[in-house]
Amino acid sequence: MKEEYFIDKYLKKCSKKNELFPIQIGDDCAVIKTDRDIVVSTDACVEKIHFPEDLDPYFIAFRSIAVAASDLIAMGSYPVGFLLTISHPNPDDKWFESFTEGIQEFNTIYGTTLIGGDLTKGELNISVTVFGEAPSRILKRDMAEHDDDIFVSNKLGLGRLGLNKVLNNELNLPNQYIKPSLLSKKETVELNKYLNAAIDVSDGLLLDLSRICKKSGVGAHMQIEDKFLTNDFDDLIAGDDYVLLFTAPNKSREQILSISESFQIIGKITNDKSIKVFDSLGKKLDFKQKGWDSFN
Amino acid sequence: MKEEYFIDKYLKKCSKKNELFPIQIGDDCAVIKTDRDIVVSTDACVEKIHFPEDLDPYFIAFRSIAVAASDLIAMGSYPVGFLLTISHPNPDDKWFESFTEGIQEFNTIYGTTLIGGDLTKGELNISVTVFGEAPSRILKRDMAEHDDDIFVSNKLGLGRLGLNKVLNNELNLPNQYIKPSLLSKKETVELNKYLNAAIDVSDGLLLDLSRICKKSGVGAHMQIEDKFLTNDFDDLIAGDDYVLLFTAPNKSREQILSISESFQIIGKITNDKSIKVFDSLGKKLDFKQKGWDSFN
Repeated sequence: MKEEYFIDKYLKKCSKKNELFPIQIGDDCAVIKTDRDIVVSTDACVEKIHFPEDLDPYFIAFRSIAVAASDLIAMGSYPVGFLLTISHPNPDDKWFESFTEGIQEFNTIYGTTLIGGDLTKGELNISVTVFGEAPSRILKRDMAEHDDDIFVSNKLGLGRLGLNKVLNNELNLPNQYIKPSLLSKKETVELNKYLNAAIDVSDGLLLDLSRICKKSGVGAHMQIEDKFLTNDFDDLIAGDDYVLLFTAPNKSREQILSISESFQIIGKITNDKSIKVFDSLGKKLDFKQKGWDSFN
Repeated sequence: MKEEYFIDKYLKKCSKKNELFPIQIGDDCAVIKTDRDIVVSTDACVEKIHFPEDLDPYFIAFRSIAVAASDLIAMGSYPVGFLLTISHPNPDDKWFESFTEGIQEFNTIYGTTLIGGDLTKGELNISVTVFGEAPSRILKRDMAEHDDDIFVSNKLGLGRLGLNKVLNNELNLPNQYIKPSLLSKKETVELNKYLNAAIDVSDGLLLDLSRICKKSGVGAHMQIEDKFLTNDFDDLIAGDDYVLLFTAPNKSREQILSISESFQIIGKITNDKSIKVFDSLGKKLDFKQKGWDSFN
């Protein structure tokens, strides 16, 4: 039975029992033992949609888990474990060796463990459900307020640059597309008390910001400086950056900027319900689309 | 944006906030508010592998959730909510209307709610992560003991019969393949204290029983009577039955059989580490395979 062969040989070593997850992968279900609330997010990554064909399985694993974990960080939580559903047309040992190394690398960096999953035949599709403990304040998209500063946790466009490198067969690291670097737990915890709203930039800054604005009933005004970008203004609609986009009252500005040198203020929340973007000389920028949608 | 359009228009109505799940679908993550342990299982259903092409999306939804929930019941838990990851090549309103009705029907019967998810382009692939509260005793596969009775919660082969009907375009209900009927919560709770080991029959009785035997370091002896089967002896290796297969000490036999008229004792756990199957006249039955694996 191929499913059990690959789970036993490869995935088991990514799964460590601990107090929070008392059963190792291999039974019908995982168990979460808790006296705290749990935050959970799920994300599917499909070949040729979310990553290019023939990408090294090491990066497929790392990227798929990181993309799901990024959503958790956007709520102020931090990943502790995850379930993997792997659909694969024809898995072999070579694929699983590399895929497992990617899981192990993510586990080492972020202190996580694989807690369960499913392996089945199908188009290559990695669905990740990631769990974290609930933070003292769960951050949502609907609490941005007029006059909030708008921050990003790093400059935009590194995901786009990374994808272009992969398409040119340049696989040197760091590469934010194939091996996304996420906010650290320390930064996530320190930020928590200051923020009004947060989301991760997965589908493009303008699209993800519009989600905060829509849910909060506000707008935004941004003047884009060169230092916010990696490539050009299209970095605002490119996605795959996995930086945190967040808003906070002005009074917390200094404390927030002291947490990390890579945090930048890119604009202000306004009352007028539209998002206005200008270049550094004050010229209005227009975009045909706001971001990425897998169906477009 | 198609993803948000379908989530807002269809999936939101399947998602009800409650004490356990305080955030409705639509933010980055779901939150599980709990002072109890949580049991969680994940399962992917892929078109042409786990269900036939062009199956009514109502049944795709119902079946995909039921298959994942069946694993939860096998641990002694019961479903309360689930995450859905939907990969679809080209979703439209008609598809989502029917799919949503299937979700709602499952929610109505089993008292569940959709708590979050993801929608993306790809081959039709429904990945379900289902959550339940932990029962007083979490049932595992590794506790079957010598001389235990082996039970099934209903006769075998109803899944196989259901699939054959679907392939002949007979969509009348009940049909255990497209609309699986699971053990009730009352039955699941009443059974809990008696059982040593349990698993659900998803891949074939012989294969799923061998998983219990392997984990528990035991074997099994079965004499198969006609009343255990729907069709013929191949019902023992057909899978898709979603009945509970469980073992319990002899002393609990009467109490267990009084819980449901459909429960049947099909054999005994033995010490010899192999599974032996005989017909009602005592003739040994041999099978070329033990069950179903998506890769074979």
